[in-house]
Amino acid sequence: MAKNTVITVAAIQQTCQSQKQHNLNRSKDKIKAAAAKGADLVVLQELHGTAYFCQSESLTPFDLAEPIPGPTSHFLSACAKEYQVVIVGSVFEKRSSGVYHNTAVVFDKDGSFKGLYRKMHIPDDPGFHEKYYFTPGDHDNIAFSPIATSIGKLGVLVCWDQWYPEAARLMALAGADILLYPTAIGWDLNDNHDEKQRQLDAWITVQRSHAITNHLPVVSVNRVGHEADSTGATKGIQFWGNSFISGPQGEILSQASDAEEETLMAQIDYSRSNTLRQIWPFFRDRRIEAYGNILKRSL
Amino acid sequence: MAKNTVITVAAIQQTCQSQKQHNLNRSKDKIKAAAAKGADLVVLQELHGTAYFCQSESLTPFDLAEPIPGPTSHFLSACAKEYQVVIVGSVFEKRSSGVYHNTAVVFDKDGSFKGLYRKMHIPDDPGFHEKYYFTPGDHDNIAFSPIATSIGKLGVLVCWDQWYPEAARLMALAGADILLYPTAIGWDLNDNHDEKQRQLDAWITVQRSHAITNHLPVVSVNRVGHEADSTGATKGIQFWGNSFISGPQGEILSQASDAEEETLMAQIDYSRSNTLRQIWPFFRDRRIEAYGNILKRSL
Repeated sequence: MAKNTVITVAAIQQTCQSQKQHNLNRSKDKIKAAAAKGADLVVLQELHGTAYFCQSESLTPFDLAEPIPGPTSHFLSACAKEYQVVIVGSVFEKRSSGVYHNTAVVFDKDGSFKGLYRKMHIPDDPGFHEKYYFTPGDHDNIAFSPIATSIGKLGVLVCWDQWYPEAARLMALAGADILLYPTAIGWDLNDNHDEKQRQLDAWITVQRSHAITNHLPVVSVNRVGHEADSTGATKGIQFWGNSFISGPQGEILSQASDAEEETLMAQIDYSRSNTLRQIWPFFRDRRIEAYGNILKRSL
Repeated sequence: MAKNTVITVAAIQQTCQSQKQHNLNRSKDKIKAAAAKGADLVVLQELHGTAYFCQSESLTPFDLAEPIPGPTSHFLSACAKEYQVVIVGSVFEKRSSGVYHNTAVVFDKDGSFKGLYRKMHIPDDPGFHEKYYFTPGDHDNIAFSPIATSIGKLGVLVCWDQWYPEAARLMALAGADILLYPTAIGWDLNDNHDEKQRQLDAWITVQRSHAITNHLPVVSVNRVGHEADSTGATKGIQFWGNSFISGPQGEILSQASDAEEETLMAQIDYSRSNTLRQIWPFFRDRRIEAYGNILKRSL
């Protein structure tokens, strides 16, 4: 638990273009503005340095990958130090020849690197060909382990992880003070209005449920805007925004639109988690001796 | 998977009084009406035969307990046969001297007993002293195992179970076609409006999330109305109703009010679950080798 139980969180929802430095510079402006308003923690969206290149499978995007530390890490570290804010960023990581990850990186207010999280659940469906680009995370110690910072233990997860209650639960058991989901999700333009609405509602609902079942605040940061499919094979993706910050009862504290760039801010009081765990003590009653089949693929 | 992929579900939200036969007779009328409208499956609320006696700890309620089979089972079996509907009911079960359970029972359309589920997660907090009355379920085989009927495999869980994504996941892995939550939850009248709303929203959200993460329809049936605390120590509980039926994307198909008796009905198409598991294939990507700590109480 952080020393200070109340922190101010900022979630930066933005559009992205192909030029990395341009995207990073725009993020920097928004980080600066959030810090000026008192943000302790800034969460950027998934792969904020680039267009969402996973719409198709091509060799070209691999040129965007970089090591950690590397240019994006240095840039974010400098921002964190300059504006004295904890930053959670995202890097298309080249770990070694032929091994690439979708990786979140965390820098403390003094610019120091506090840790990384390599996306564990990798999606792959039309428009989201992530299994081509990213090796799933293979953390040596605890796979789902929060990253300790001066403003609390950050339960950093990424996008597709949000559909897995197992990931949120493991982060909570490992002592996370807050769950963070940098994300890039959007609509297939061939789907009708009702299907789009069901998908968006499902996305919000499932992340709110992680707050509820674990009594933890949740910050979900999604990209926004239309991005074309560079192959022209599809109509591209309309990233649906709707970034939000939720309290530990799943209550929405702040939520962005589905079309605009926006920086959300909210105050989070970590001490509420402990209180809620006394009011509705879910952790007390877990039937761990009967959960064994959770570790099976199929029964 | 059931032969017929489309079924009609009815959820009976009702008030309860102290006299068991009176409650059962009222349920019977509602079952009859639902069957007349084409229900294949009727789900009754938790402990529908009695007032919610767990508001306080007293010897008296133990007289309400009964074996399975026993009077309530016989009554429900006869209803199922008479109206040719699958019934999920609830019994305060006396299993042996000193061993009582909060148990769901399932009868098929021919009145045959198909199985039972003894509530695995038992709550205990002010107004809900269930640990005094109920031994947690200790199923010999798979703890969370769906009950096979002529209209599908029913993933029967009870009330407090609904806060545990592990329970829903285990039922899904074990082949459930649908998740059912007979429930008795309500407001502490000392809580303010905002807190009441957060609790209700959390309750709906968490159950919708089980639909979403497992691509399964969900039926949640709650009691409604105020019940006094027989000891007079508290203001009693205002059971908040809001029973609902959700499709496998977490979309609400039908929802009851917070104050009235109501029988919800909706059509469920089991085949959508399989389709959704192809569109958003969460089950494909579970990182079971990294989930081991889920089986721990605390890290």
